[in-house]
Amino acid sequence: MKYGIAIFPTKKLQDLANSFRKRYDAHYALIPPHVTLKTAFEIDENDMKSVTDELAAIAKDTTPIPLNIYKVSSFAPVNNVIYLKVDPTDELLSLHEKLHSGKGYFQDNREFSYVPHITIGQNLSDDEHSDVLGQLKMTNIEHEEVVDRFHLLYQLEDGMWTVYETFRFGKDC
Amino acid sequence: MKYGIAIFPTKKLQDLANSFRKRYDAHYALIPPHVTLKTAFEIDENDMKSVTDELAAIAKDTTPIPLNIYKVSSFAPVNNVIYLKVDPTDELLSLHEKLHSGKGYFQDNREFSYVPHITIGQNLSDDEHSDVLGQLKMTNIEHEEVVDRFHLLYQLEDGMWTVYETFRFGKDC
Repeated sequence: MKYGIAIFPTKKLQDLANSFRKRYDAHYALIPPHVTLKTAFEIDENDMKSVTDELAAIAKDTTPIPLNIYKVSSFAPVNNVIYLKVDPTDELLSLHEKLHSGKGYFQDNREFSYVPHITIGQNLSDDEHSDVLGQLKMTNIEHEEVVDRFHLLYQLEDGMWTVYETFRFGKDC
Repeated sequence: MKYGIAIFPTKKLQDLANSFRKRYDAHYALIPPHVTLKTAFEIDENDMKSVTDELAAIAKDTTPIPLNIYKVSSFAPVNNVIYLKVDPTDELLSLHEKLHSGKGYFQDNREFSYVPHITIGQNLSDDEHSDVLGQLKMTNIEHEEVVDRFHLLYQLEDGMWTVYETFRFGKDC
């Protein structure tokens, strides 16, 4: 089964992201607005206990993380994904690193260097991408908050994601 | 902010439910397939700690719950909602009762008697409802599983639900 690890920001930031996503993001219906910490990876069902134990240990060892957003950006020309750029604070990068520097499921499987972000537009044509990005870049977006948890999710056959479990920072389980 | 409490069944059952939902459920995009345990209620942000403590205590005191489905049914003529009927086992009814028999947020606010279910169709016209229900009633649906957790969710402005926290049965937190 395919799993992923993500942070859901506050309702306020999710509402802001969804105001764009519902117009520009073809994946709007599959998952609420989120910051991906670890992209889709397979977990054998028999290993769920050890994986969730490991995630609980990582969460226990993590302090609240600032999640700050100051601009809209795009991954073009690699792809036409428009996103809210999440400030890559040391705390956030450190958590990301912990999820990619262990053994087994937590070994480094990254294809790209980590650019923390909240996707707000994707699968746009070149023209649409350019129009929307130009427009959003003129929008004044400034948001700061602190997150205290991440979630392990799994993907359904139709692409939709369901939360399996929450891991709170500084907590035993 | 509006919160709700729900069980997400296994991927297998969610995949089955979504195969119907994507065709017949206008709310398909707002939340993965689920069994509602407590319908939308407001929680004051200052009370989140006490509410989640209470939910953790309830979860700790709950043993795994059988979630069995043997038929498709409908709430018509009250409304045109088609659902997978969840067998109302003592364990499930007891958990539901605990979430409606306390003080404050857990007082009894039920408008209807509890019919545990997974919605697979809604907002259908009378004709469509009748066609789809007739068709699904002839489908052989039999599924049994055991659930070991519930989730506290909150609702975004566009109606989408995000998981706030998972509560595992028999666990301290």
